[in-house]
Amino acid sequence: MRTGIATVCLSGTLKEKMQACAIAGFDGIEIFEQDLVTSPLSPEDVRKMAADLGLGLDLYQPFRDFDSVTEDILQENLRRADAKFKLMSRLGMDTILVCTNVGTATIDDDDLRAGQLSRLAELAGNHGVKVAYEALAWGKYVNDYEHAHRLVDTVDHPNLGTCLDSFHILSRDWDTAPIEAIKPEKIFFVQVADAPKLSMDVLSWSRHYRVFPGEGQFELAKFMGHVARAGYSGPVSLEVFNDVFRQSDVERTAVDAMRSLIWLEEQSAKWLDANAASLIPGSADGDSLAHAARRRRYPMELATLPKVAEPAGFNFAEVKTDEPAQLETLLGQLGFEFAGRHRTKDVQLWSMGQARVIINEQAPSHSEPAIAALGFDVDSPVIASARAQQLRAPVVPRKVQADEEVFQGIAAPDSTEIFLCQGSPDGTAAWTHEFGEGLEHPAAAGSAVIDHVNLAQPWQHFDEAVLFYTSALALEPLPFAEVPSPSGLVRSQVMQTSDRAVRLVLNLAPLLQQGGRKSYQEHIAFAVDDLVATARAAQARGLDFLQIPANYYEDLDARFALEPAFLATLKELNLLYDRDANGEFLHFYTATVGSVFFEMVERRGNYDGYGAPNAPVRHAVQYDAAQYDSLHTHHMHR
Amino acid sequence: MRTGIATVCLSGTLKEKMQACAIAGFDGIEIFEQDLVTSPLSPEDVRKMAADLGLGLDLYQPFRDFDSVTEDILQENLRRADAKFKLMSRLGMDTILVCTNVGTATIDDDDLRAGQLSRLAELAGNHGVKVAYEALAWGKYVNDYEHAHRLVDTVDHPNLGTCLDSFHILSRDWDTAPIEAIKPEKIFFVQVADAPKLSMDVLSWSRHYRVFPGEGQFELAKFMGHVARAGYSGPVSLEVFNDVFRQSDVERTAVDAMRSLIWLEEQSAKWLDANAASLIPGSADGDSLAHAARRRRYPMELATLPKVAEPAGFNFAEVKTDEPAQLETLLGQLGFEFAGRHRTKDVQLWSMGQARVIINEQAPSHSEPAIAALGFDVDSPVIASARAQQLRAPVVPRKVQADEEVFQGIAAPDSTEIFLCQGSPDGTAAWTHEFGEGLEHPAAAGSAVIDHVNLAQPWQHFDEAVLFYTSALALEPLPFAEVPSPSGLVRSQVMQTSDRAVRLVLNLAPLLQQGGRKSYQEHIAFAVDDLVATARAAQARGLDFLQIPANYYEDLDARFALEPAFLATLKELNLLYDRDANGEFLHFYTATVGSVFFEMVERRGNYDGYGAPNAPVRHAVQYDAAQYDSLHTHHMHR
Repeated sequence: MRTGIATVCLSGTLKEKMQACAIAGFDGIEIFEQDLVTSPLSPEDVRKMAADLGLGLDLYQPFRDFDSVTEDILQENLRRADAKFKLMSRLGMDTILVCTNVGTATIDDDDLRAGQLSRLAELAGNHGVKVAYEALAWGKYVNDYEHAHRLVDTVDHPNLGTCLDSFHILSRDWDTAPIEAIKPEKIFFVQVADAPKLSMDVLSWSRHYRVFPGEGQFELAKFMGHVARAGYSGPVSLEVFNDVFRQSDVERTAVDAMRSLIWLEEQSAKWLDANAASLIPGSADGDSLAHAARRRRYPMELATLPKVAEPAGFNFAEVKTDEPAQLETLLGQLGFEFAGRHRTKDVQLWSMGQARVIINEQAPSHSEPAIAALGFDVDSPVIASARAQQLRAPVVPRKVQADEEVFQGIAAPDSTEIFLCQGSPDGTAAWTHEFGEGLEHPAAAGSAVIDHVNLAQPWQHFDEAVLFYTSALALEPLPFAEVPSPSGLVRSQVMQTSDRAVRLVLNLAPLLQQGGRKSYQEHIAFAVDDLVATARAAQARGLDFLQIPANYYEDLDARFALEPAFLATLKELNLLYDRDANGEFLHFYTATVGSVFFEMVERRGNYDGYGAPNAPVRHAVQYDAAQYDSLHTHHMHR
Repeated sequence: MRTGIATVCLSGTLKEKMQACAIAGFDGIEIFEQDLVTSPLSPEDVRKMAADLGLGLDLYQPFRDFDSVTEDILQENLRRADAKFKLMSRLGMDTILVCTNVGTATIDDDDLRAGQLSRLAELAGNHGVKVAYEALAWGKYVNDYEHAHRLVDTVDHPNLGTCLDSFHILSRDWDTAPIEAIKPEKIFFVQVADAPKLSMDVLSWSRHYRVFPGEGQFELAKFMGHVARAGYSGPVSLEVFNDVFRQSDVERTAVDAMRSLIWLEEQSAKWLDANAASLIPGSADGDSLAHAARRRRYPMELATLPKVAEPAGFNFAEVKTDEPAQLETLLGQLGFEFAGRHRTKDVQLWSMGQARVIINEQAPSHSEPAIAALGFDVDSPVIASARAQQLRAPVVPRKVQADEEVFQGIAAPDSTEIFLCQGSPDGTAAWTHEFGEGLEHPAAAGSAVIDHVNLAQPWQHFDEAVLFYTSALALEPLPFAEVPSPSGLVRSQVMQTSDRAVRLVLNLAPLLQQGGRKSYQEHIAFAVDDLVATARAAQARGLDFLQIPANYYEDLDARFALEPAFLATLKELNLLYDRDANGEFLHFYTATVGSVFFEMVERRGNYDGYGAPNAPVRHAVQYDAAQYDSLHTHHMHR
């Protein structure tokens, strides 16, 4: 698949954008007119730079408000088009995007429109330019891709074709199957964008909230499948207007964009395989014929990625600090056992059943303790790592000694290191033998697993993180929730496996917390079988629980009419509680060390959530504690 | 008018919120349930703290999903209500907000609903509690305030009334006139919120984008007028869910909120005066009777503010720096004349016709040159200052010597000092005699006025700034625009007088620029009669123009088919151009000094804009220049 991206997706100058696109590996770009107009580079400079960078200049865009106008405006528009065609010749570009009219259209007549488009095509032909006519979702008279295509068909000129844009088609819920009926030589260009499902006017939605494929909720694989089956094999180019991407680091956004197209290729190929049966009349067994049918039927090359299944579980979580004492105390109080130091590195292993926490003491001095790495159990670390690298995930360098397990590591958008580990059916991990040599192992601690991990995300990289975990780790994003806190709404995005063995929560903290005096807190949650017993034992060991206000228990009682003794136990132990149709959820939090705290949970029945109604209580109490800490010296207050 | 605010409007803990409300001068507050549940304060603590702070606890809210349910759920809801009524008694609160059901309602039957509300009212009566029933705009069966009121009317219980919320009424475009038909004793509470007109689903709109009165586009004065004419005289309380306010400084937001209510009082009184005729049957002369009618007709006390007309013009603009050389050079090159130093302060006056710029050299060392103050001509500085102070604008302390003009100064939300000056019909300013004593005044420079000033606003204070200039300075906000720049979209809000003598543009810079390495640029624009001549003279004096790319002029030609000699002149002098149905606009920019640059404009015909199509060019070139500067030493590159 020929990959492309419109310069409007990115921040910076035209030069910076082109360089970033080349670094990210795009085949070509769309030049957004304003980026050229505002650039000190001459058209000839741009042409040369693109050639030097190995970037095709695939589309000049947009030319607006051409058709459905009176003759005097048409004359003016043809003059304007002529100037742009000359400019394109200097740029060495041969395709221009012409959008359906939203502003100056006054005549709703398909015959008139076809006549006007025919004159434009004729003029374009004289300049060797191809016009890709695209229906905008809010076009005044033409807002439907089939309508735009009928006009192209009527004009029947070699220099007039259509541009299909997934946003304009899917935002209006147009059926995408009829794309297959379009002759491939009449599809001049394909633009793709994803978007979250929002109910707002389509223009605002389009201009601010588009995201890269895999970061929204559109059925893009299906759209691309129909495009491929139509026989199209030209550029597939991202056109994403997004308030955040427009101000983020340009090289990083370009890589995120490239990742989305690579992932989309794979998803499109999957859709084609899954839907091959529908292509072969009379065939009841689509699967066995799928591959052959795909090869036979369409010319678009779809690169494949190394395949991975979703991870089987968390292998470990790693916290980095230069002063491990507080973390050691906390884990010990929670019931974790010290399982020894690594034989060559300055790290400790703590475990409780299958829950393993590494305390990495190699943090720079005075840095806050923070979640630094997560290990995931996968079928094949090498295949998973190959996939991640093809998805442009940065590799984490890791020094290993002989006889030590080599971890395949990649860096998530928030810099958390993600290690792809060889899981074992019994939940143990081979690498633990590198720890605790000569240590007399204590009796095994209680049973526990890592239930979920909650990572804070900087606002510039939230969508990127969703695509990263979706594409590289095969986690499934749920619709996001918003949780009130004393410093603003916290956007909370759950990513999980179908069996819930891995649950990862990405939290987008309010802006003022980011870069402000308070860093945002992250945590690791462990699931146990008997939370009350675990809490009592922790209490006996002197654990500093997050203190839950008495008002919470009154409200809990008003909502759930709990048995008085049970309510008293919850209150006594600072436990939180939730209940829904599927089951019950008990949990408690520890105080925070640096930016890290821990949670212990017990899931009863088929409860599948995270105690969302309790999240505001946690945020408020932690906010209060942070206020307190900032007034006193830095220490755990207990 | 009894003023109130819901704690959900503000950031922080319940304690912080209550303290901020007391400081801002609210009469009472609504306690949002979650704020109490998450607080370590007991209900008794809250009661005592409110009493100590002089704050009434006017409304407990919200109680959700009560009515239109099956009998078993109703039993559960009554039990839940009973717990909340007991809690309210501990808080010393007597009114609770009950919203129409959005979640659990399954039976759409007004008789059943009335029966269920009657049982709730009876229970409430036993606890001395009044239930204020409010129609949510997205209520499942009841989403219209008249419907909610009919139910209240049917039940006819002293402990059941209605709550009117401007958002839920105006977001659905319900007619507000029928409010007058509601018996005042049946209106238990009134909540107000403004909002920008957005086309999105009403729930998202409500939960994220509400603003304080005067910061949005709802007809709140009319809403309040009908409420007053109904005979209501209870609390008027802000309930504003806003993503920004929820994370901004709590004390500051509370003051902004208070300002909005004070302004709303005035606007409501105006509406009542203007519409008094409609109250008095047979009267053709409403105006003369208005005041009496208002007094006679309704019990709500509406405080009045000192009245001001819109300002007549800019009196001066002041730039602060510790190194004035670059600014002096720039102003001299633009055609400004040095008009002397102040006789006691370390400031200089530069003027060109009626355009006066003060260079204040009293900035701390190494601070960036920045726009520090604006002077506005008003009818009476004292009255205008009194008004601003009643609107809680912070006063700027100013040392003056004997015989010097005393400026009335207030601080805008972005800390720009706003001085209220005595204008003169001929455009001169009396205070200028304090400058240039003994200086041999040069021949008057060319004619010019300050056309507009463009101020960058931090994102946390954008809405606050709109209300500030609307209420304190009587400027009128236009709908905002969004301008692309290499670092993201810039939101641009024009505030102006009806005669355009004052034009102020508030720009909301992209987030990454805020607090990042680049500070956002601001500018002062001067209007002249002949821009080409001005530019030529400036060129001759060696002015460092903002360099406009050649591509811009090609695009200009494609768009406007300009006369070639004129186009050549524009290009030669780095002039920008715009044209619309009203006239033409020529302008140019200087290079930037610190965070300040200047613009010269010429308006031809009735052109009323700011060259918005050219703004992206300016942003791109300035971005490029800033990149260049950050790679070199800090100096003006020329």
